[in-house]
Amino acid sequence: MLEELKKEVYEANMLLPEYGLVTFTWGNVSGVDREKGLFAIKPSGVDYDKLTPDDIVLVDFDGNKVEGKMNPSSDTATHAYLYKMFPTLGGIVHTHSPYATSWAQAGRSIPCYGTTHADYYYGEVPCVRCLTAEEIEEAYEFNTGKLIVDEFIAQGKDPDAVSAVLCTNHGPFTWGKNPVAAVHSAVVLEEVAKMAYRTELINPKVQPAPQCLQDKHYFRKHGANAYYGQGN
Amino acid sequence: MLEELKKEVYEANMLLPEYGLVTFTWGNVSGVDREKGLFAIKPSGVDYDKLTPDDIVLVDFDGNKVEGKMNPSSDTATHAYLYKMFPTLGGIVHTHSPYATSWAQAGRSIPCYGTTHADYYYGEVPCVRCLTAEEIEEAYEFNTGKLIVDEFIAQGKDPDAVSAVLCTNHGPFTWGKNPVAAVHSAVVLEEVAKMAYRTELINPKVQPAPQCLQDKHYFRKHGANAYYGQGN
Amino acid sequence: MLEELKKEVYEANMLLPEYGLVTFTWGNVSGVDREKGLFAIKPSGVDYDKLTPDDIVLVDFDGNKVEGKMNPSSDTATHAYLYKMFPTLGGIVHTHSPYATSWAQAGRSIPCYGTTHADYYYGEVPCVRCLTAEEIEEAYEFNTGKLIVDEFIAQGKDPDAVSAVLCTNHGPFTWGKNPVAAVHSAVVLEEVAKMAYRTELINPKVQPAPQCLQDKHYFRKHGANAYYGQGN
Amino acid sequence: MLEELKKEVYEANMLLPEYGLVTFTWGNVSGVDREKGLFAIKPSGVDYDKLTPDDIVLVDFDGNKVEGKMNPSSDTATHAYLYKMFPTLGGIVHTHSPYATSWAQAGRSIPCYGTTHADYYYGEVPCVRCLTAEEIEEAYEFNTGKLIVDEFIAQGKDPDAVSAVLCTNHGPFTWGKNPVAAVHSAVVLEEVAKMAYRTELINPKVQPAPQCLQDKHYFRKHGANAYYGQGN
Repeated sequence: MLEELKKEVYEANMLLPEYGLVTFTWGNVSGVDREKGLFAIKPSGVDYDKLTPDDIVLVDFDGNKVEGKMNPSSDTATHAYLYKMFPTLGGIVHTHSPYATSWAQAGRSIPCYGTTHADYYYGEVPCVRCLTAEEIEEAYEFNTGKLIVDEFIAQGKDPDAVSAVLCTNHGPFTWGKNPVAAVHSAVVLEEVAKMAYRTELINPKVQPAPQCLQDKHYFRKHGANAYYGQGN
Repeated sequence: MLEELKKEVYEANMLLPEYGLVTFTWGNVSGVDREKGLFAIKPSGVDYDKLTPDDIVLVDFDGNKVEGKMNPSSDTATHAYLYKMFPTLGGIVHTHSPYATSWAQAGRSIPCYGTTHADYYYGEVPCVRCLTAEEIEEAYEFNTGKLIVDEFIAQGKDPDAVSAVLCTNHGPFTWGKNPVAAVHSAVVLEEVAKMAYRTELINPKVQPAPQCLQDKHYFRKHGANAYYGQGN
Repeated sequence: MLEELKKEVYEANMLLPEYGLVTFTWGNVSGVDREKGLFAIKPSGVDYDKLTPDDIVLVDFDGNKVEGKMNPSSDTATHAYLYKMFPTLGGIVHTHSPYATSWAQAGRSIPCYGTTHADYYYGEVPCVRCLTAEEIEEAYEFNTGKLIVDEFIAQGKDPDAVSAVLCTNHGPFTWGKNPVAAVHSAVVLEEVAKMAYRTELINPKVQPAPQCLQDKHYFRKHGANAYYGQGN
Repeated sequence: MLEELKKEVYEANMLLPEYGLVTFTWGNVSGVDREKGLFAIKPSGVDYDKLTPDDIVLVDFDGNKVEGKMNPSSDTATHAYLYKMFPTLGGIVHTHSPYATSWAQAGRSIPCYGTTHADYYYGEVPCVRCLTAEEIEEAYEFNTGKLIVDEFIAQGKDPDAVSAVLCTNHGPFTWGKNPVAAVHSAVVLEEVAKMAYRTELINPKVQPAPQCLQDKHYFRKHGANAYYGQGN
C-alpha cells in the first residue's frame, strides 16, 4: 500500500546522512497521504545503510500501525499529532543535528539575526519548554506533539511560515509540504543555528535584524509578491 | 552572445560548492564584459547541480536583462551598481558563507589580526550598516550596492585593496579582476573571518596587527615592489 | 590463538579513523575473551593504514603479553585492570577525540543536557582527577585504571549504564559489550561532548536536563521496558 | 642536484593539503642536506596541484638560491636561519593552519593542558613577539628566524623537545628530523591548538597539566627510557 509514498519517505530519510544531519540512527523522516489519512515513517533504530523502502511503516493519525513488519520510529506519536493538527504539513523530520540540538539543550529560541534565517523562517524559531514529569509519564511522545501545537497556537505562529521548532533538552523537529522539503528545512535550521551561535560569540550584545529586513527577505521568497527564483 | 564569458561565469559559480561556500542556492557569481557594458550572472534559485552555461543571464549596468531565458539572481541590482561605480571590478561574488555571515549578522567589521588577512586585504574588511526601512522598501538590492559604494568612498577605501565587504544582518560580497579572483576572495574572507572569530575567543583583549606588519605583508604581494610569487 | 577475536579487534580499531576519532596513532581498541581470561589489543604506535589482524597482541588481566610479535598499546595496563574489575565489559576504547579530550583537559564531567546524552549515558559522564606524582611514578597506566574503578565504586556508578569516563589532563576511555559497541560509545561521547560545549556557550546558566526526562530517554532504550528499536 | 631531497620535499609539501593544513598556497615545506649545506624548498606562490619535484628550489644557509628555475618561498630567509642555528633540524614547515594561526594572532603561547600536547612538546609552545617596525623594514623574514632562535635560547628551550613556535600576528613554524616529521609536527600543533582553545572555553580557569604528568608522557615517548611504540 502507498508504495510511491514509502519510496519517497525512504529517499528523504537517506538524505539525512547525506547532508550530515545524523549520527547512527538519530533521526527520522515521515511523509503523509492526506486522502488516506496515513503517513509513512522510518522504522525505529534501523541503520541508514540497511534501510530499504519495504521497511517503511504506515501509521494513522492516532499513531496506530496500519502496515509494516517493523516497529515505527519511537517518535511516531509526535509526528501523528502534528499531521492531525497542522493540515498543511506533507512531511516531518526529527534529527539531533548538533547546532540545532545545542540551542534546544540551552533552552533558547533562535533569534532572527539575518537574511539567511529570514529567507526561510518568519521570526524566531521557537524553543518549547521541557515537558513536566506528569506529561512525560503519561504520554511522552504524544505530549511533545501537543506542546508544539499548543505553543504555535498560543504564540500565533503559522506552521507554514515557521517550519521548525526546538524542544528543550531534546532537539529539533522540522516540516514542509513534502518529505524532501522537511529535510530541506532541517538543513537550513542547522545552518541558521550555527550562524546564530557564532553571531552571539562575535557580538554578545547583538539584536535581532530589524523587522523591515525580515519582512523584505521573507516576502522576497514567499507569498504573492515573491520574486526570488524562477516563479515555479 | 558572450559565450566565453558565460562559460567563465558558469565555472566560477561551480567553484562555490566545491570550496564549501554555499548551502543549496545561497550564492551567485557574475563576470563583466567592460567593452560591451554587460555582465553575466547566475539565474535566481537554480540548484548548482542543475546549472548549465546556457542558464547564465546577461544584464546591463542598470540591471536590465539583455539575454537569457531565466530570471537573473535576485541580487542583480547590487552587482550592477558595483560594476557601474567600481570600474576595475571584473567579477563579483555573493555568498552566505557561515563565518563571514556571522560577522555580518554581528554587525562588525573584521579587524586585521594577522598576516593571513594583510596578505589580501589592506586594513579591516568593513561591515556597512543595515539599510533603513525606506531604503529597503524603495529599492533593496540597488540600495545595497549604493551603500557599499558610498561607504567605500566615505572611508577612502580602494576596492582593489579591499575586495570584500560585509552587509549587516545579511552577508558578504567579494570581488576581483575576474570571476575566479572574486571567488578566491570569498574563500580568503571565510578563512580570515574564521580565524578572527577564534582569535577574539582566545584573547578577548587582542588588538589589530601593527600597521607596519600590515604594510609589509600587503606590499610583499601587491604593487610595484611585490616579491611574493613568480612575478607573473 | 583467538584468531576470531583478533580479527574483531582489528576491525574495531579500523573504525576509529573511519569515524574521525583519531589523528595518527592516538587511539586503541581491545576486546576480551572472558573464558580464556585474555584480551586482544592494538600494538603500540602502529599506523592504522599498516595495521593487520596479525599485529594484534594477546594479554592477560595482569597486563602480561601472552602472544604477539609486537609491544601492546602503552595503555594496556589500564585496559587490563578495567577488564579485571568490571566483569561485564567486552571491549574498551581509548582515543584523544578532540571534544571529549577538551572536557578532560578542562577537568570537568560532562553534564547531561539533553536526550542525546540520556539515550546512552545514565547521568553525567564523570571526569576522574589527575593522578598524583606518586601514582604516576609508581605505575601510571595501572593506576589510571584503578582510579577509574575506584571512582565508579565511590560514586555508585554502574559501568553498564555509563560506558565512558574522562581522565583529567588526558582523555576518554569508553567501553561496551564488545569492541564495536565500545567504539560506538566513543562516537556518542564525542557528539555529546561537542553539544555540551556549545550548549554552555549558548546559555552559560544552563542546568542539566530534569531527572524525569533523563529517566524517560534512558529507559526508553535500556532495560526491561525499553521500546526503542526492533526488540533485538 | 639532490634529486632525492627535492622529491622528498615535494612529497612532504603535498602532505599539507592532504592533511587540510593549507588554503591555496599558504604553506611551504623545506628539507636540508647537512653535508652539502643546502636545503630544498617550495617555490613561492605555486599551487599545490601544479607543483612538481622539478619546481623545488635549492638554497644555501644564507638564503641564496643555488639551483632552480623559480623563486623560492618568500619565507626562505626564515628557514635558512633556523637551519643555520639549529643544527639538528632536518625539515621545516610553515603554514597558516587555522587554529595555530588563531593562537598566533591572539599573541599567546599554547599552554600544555594535557597528554596530547605533552606526548609531543615539552612545555608550552611559545609565541614570539611581533617584530618591530625596524626589524620588519630591515629584513623581515631573516629577523623572523632570528627572533625565534633568540627566544629559544633566552628561554632555554631545546628545539628538539619543542618542535613548534608561533609568531605573533602571523602563524606557526614547525620542524623535525626530516620534512615528513616537520609536517607531522604541524598536524599535531593544529590538534593541540584546537583542543587548548576549546579547553579554555569549557573551563576559563583551567591550569596547565601538572609537571609530573607532562614529564611522564613526554619521556614515555622520547629519550632513553621511552616505552611507547615498537622501539624503532
